Amino acid sequence: MATESATSLRRAHAILLALSSDEAAAKGGLGVIRIAVLTGREKSQVSRTLRTLSELGFVDRDPDTLSYRLGWGLISLSARAGEQRLLEATSPLLVRLVNEVGEGAHLSVLKGKEVLTVLSESPGQALQAVNWVGRMVPAYCTSSGRALLLDHEESELIRLWEEGSWPRPGPNAPADVDDFCARVAHARAEGYVVADEELEAGLVAVAAPIRDERGRISAALDVSGPKFRLEGRTHLVGARIKATSDELSSIDWRSRAASHAAGAPAHLG
Amino acid sequence: MATESATSLRRAHAILLALSSDEAAAKGGLGVIRIAVLTGREKSQVSRTLRTLSELGFVDRDPDTLSYRLGWGLISLSARAGEQRLLEATSPLLVRLVNEVGEGAHLSVLKGKEVLTVLSESPGQALQAVNWVGRMVPAYCTSSGRALLLDHEESELIRLWEEGSWPRPGPNAPADVDDFCARVAHARAEGYVVADEELEAGLVAVAAPIRDERGRISAALDVSGPKFRLEGRTHLVGARIKATSDELSSIDWRSRAASHAAGAPAHLG
Repeated sequence: MATESATSLRRAHAILLALSSDEAAAKGGLGVIRIAVLTGREKSQVSRTLRTLSELGFVDRDPDTLSYRLGWGLISLSARAGEQRLLEATSPLLVRLVNEVGEGAHLSVLKGKEVLTVLSESPGQALQAVNWVGRMVPAYCTSSGRALLLDHEESELIRLWEEGSWPRPGPNAPADVDDFCARVAHARAEGYVVADEELEAGLVAVAAPIRDERGRISAALDVSGPKFRLEGRTHLVGARIKATSDELSSIDWRSRAASHAAGAPAHLG
Repeated sequence: MATESATSLRRAHAILLALSSDEAAAKGGLGVIRIAVLTGREKSQVSRTLRTLSELGFVDRDPDTLSYRLGWGLISLSARAGEQRLLEATSPLLVRLVNEVGEGAHLSVLKGKEVLTVLSESPGQALQAVNWVGRMVPAYCTSSGRALLLDHEESELIRLWEEGSWPRPGPNAPADVDDFCARVAHARAEGYVVADEELEAGLVAVAAPIRDERGRISAALDVSGPKFRLEGRTHLVGARIKATSDELSSIDWRSRAASHAAGAPAHLG
């Protein structure tokens, strides 16, 4: 029964992931049959799970097309997810960073060996920013990934990356785990990370870690943009990002979460 | 087995709701025993479910206190949830509304008989706004609730509210279902809704519905603030909100979702 329960949750999760895919976004939703194909599950099981997920607000069904989409209920839950206090404190500082540096700035957290963007701010266009939140990129060839791994011992890094291959998406991506560990050590000494064409040709990014009140790295701040605009001033940008990250690290954002939980529903009406 | 699967999902949902409570936010997380008490479930079951939820990224566990919190993975999913195109299109218009009216403005959707805030903008302080997203308020005594119900037939409204009591949180809340139906009919004729001290004494709110490309009401826009500041200009504010809602209704935001799904991960680095 315990296993059955975990299986149900994993099936539900696989369905939600399918509904968060580019295909689902492009089509404005997916039908039961397509979800069954994408998740490799039986149609009848998928159908039953979708019914429960719909009842719980995790998915919404279009009354015309009968296709399913991720539901508004997820927005409700996610408004309380992660470190809300950190998100709130970071939001205005991201705006400031973007104004200072003139490039997009992002807050991310580590999920396994990948980096998840949780907050974005771009110069000018909000649309571009929205599109980025929720995306995952590999940690080993991104500035934010390296910033999130700055405290990891070399042995931990080797253990994390001992399995799997080393794809090199950008021309300067780390060649192997030794190269990667050397770059982490270098960034540790600098206090910030520069990734120069590691994820993609022509792309430069600079990042620094944010620490919680116990000194542990819990998130990273990064600025990224085209090489021709960032080249030659990565030290300057690094210093700005490090200063902003240090400012966020000095906030006791966990214990202050309480002040944001209160409040009567007087705001609407 | 089908029932067992639904039971597992409902238990998981109950746990996530407990972790989205004010208590969880205030304490920065909850332990297994407290979650079991709050959800009325067996500790061993709760513990097993939490393990799977943690594995899937729905919850995160604090390595020091061992308490659970809603996880960053939810942010990832919710970034694709709801009508992203509507959220993106509304965001700059909310900012404009706040500047025009000088009060907080919100986007909400209907969940059963309640209204869920999905986007908020406040004059000045971002902190206040963040706190509101994800909150639910009753639909029958709020302007946005009535705006979301504007197309409902009287018989549907009566059916929705035939069960349960009529608490009157504010001095001018509808007295009964007839009163409520009359207010809906009045707002339908005006094209926007005014709720004057219905949810709370001293609070005035004005709302208008947003329609999708098929003409169906899918969300509502509202502005709310203290009575002394909004009194005497609800018609003006109503006209502004209606104009903004009409602008959003004219956007074919569903079919344009595709343009936001594409894009290589070049934004980070």
